[in-house]
Amino acid sequence: MSTDIDFYFDFVSPYAYLAANRIERLAAAHGRKVRWKPVLMTVLSKAAGTQLLPFLPMKWRYIQHDVARSARLAGIPFRWPACFPKLLLAPGRAMTWLAATHGDDLAAAFAHTCFSAFFGDGIDIEDKEVLAGIAAGLGVERDALLAALEDEAVKAAFKQGSEDAIAKGVFGVPFMIADGEPYWGFDRLVQLEQALRGERKAA
Amino acid sequence: MSTDIDFYFDFVSPYAYLAANRIERLAAAHGRKVRWKPVLMTVLSKAAGTQLLPFLPMKWRYIQHDVARSARLAGIPFRWPACFPKLLLAPGRAMTWLAATHGDDLAAAFAHTCFSAFFGDGIDIEDKEVLAGIAAGLGVERDALLAALEDEAVKAAFKQGSEDAIAKGVFGVPFMIADGEPYWGFDRLVQLEQALRGERKAA
Repeated sequence: MSTDIDFYFDFVSPYAYLAANRIERLAAAHGRKVRWKPVLMTVLSKAAGTQLLPFLPMKWRYIQHDVARSARLAGIPFRWPACFPKLLLAPGRAMTWLAATHGDDLAAAFAHTCFSAFFGDGIDIEDKEVLAGIAAGLGVERDALLAALEDEAVKAAFKQGSEDAIAKGVFGVPFMIADGEPYWGFDRLVQLEQALRGERKAA
Repeated sequence: MSTDIDFYFDFVSPYAYLAANRIERLAAAHGRKVRWKPVLMTVLSKAAGTQLLPFLPMKWRYIQHDVARSARLAGIPFRWPACFPKLLLAPGRAMTWLAATHGDDLAAAFAHTCFSAFFGDGIDIEDKEVLAGIAAGLGVERDALLAALEDEAVKAAFKQGSEDAIAKGVFGVPFMIADGEPYWGFDRLVQLEQALRGERKAA
């Protein structure tokens, strides 16, 4: 079994943003690598029969409060982008292509910058020019990224990622799988860390 | 504003059971009192437009795993009662009557024993004779409790508790409100504690 930590996320999820902010450091502290798995909450929620949070007014009112509080307590910069909520397809497609062509590390750096741009600075990351600019900052040719965003094979590969996640039992994000054990939610990083620490003690 | 901590719960919720196991000690450590508020998840979920977890197979598979893991990590005895899931009306009605006639402290002790019987020992707490036995152990007359369970005014008062909760924005359990701040979930006891500690520091 791989010792990597699978990290399932959707760029539109504020809790995934908070977890993304912590997961690399947590993994590295225990000699693990993170495998970033972009998925679409719309596809997951359909498969799981759940409803997206913004469509549940009572719950959503609390969640908005909880997200801001959780970010503040964790010391992570956070704001609601003006365009939130929004179906984000382009950053997941871009990341899928970047991972395949430029490697996982560059794709992870791209994901971090996208998340910070969206929830840190309120920038619309469905805007292809914005994504091309972020990629360019990482040394990726703008035109190659813009072409990839229109590539049907890239779109299909990104879509397949959600199907693969569903096959693993992933119904929401952030969702982490480490050593076969599933963890759902930013708040479950605590239990993930306990597991990683426990294993170390035993070694 | 009251300094009491409102603790909304349904006896059928395993996460509420875990929180019930901790809330008194947490409150006492910060000089607070707990106000126990029994509600019905069926009523809350209808108002909030959410679905009860056992009806969402993908999510429910994970939740079952997470509940057992959370109990183990917290060192709280836990088992799935053979009759789970089940609509539990009688213990909430009993508690409503006990709080009104015998005071909050006895009602809280009753709730603790019910929770332990259900999730600790797997005993069916919808069974009226079981509830009468638990009440008798606290010095309450069996027949008075059995009569209260059939009392329409008691049934209405218990039902009203869920409506009152909904009016406060409560859509799930366990749900805690302290100093006007809402906390949903066993895992949010951490943030509740941080808030109570912060206030103490400032005092």
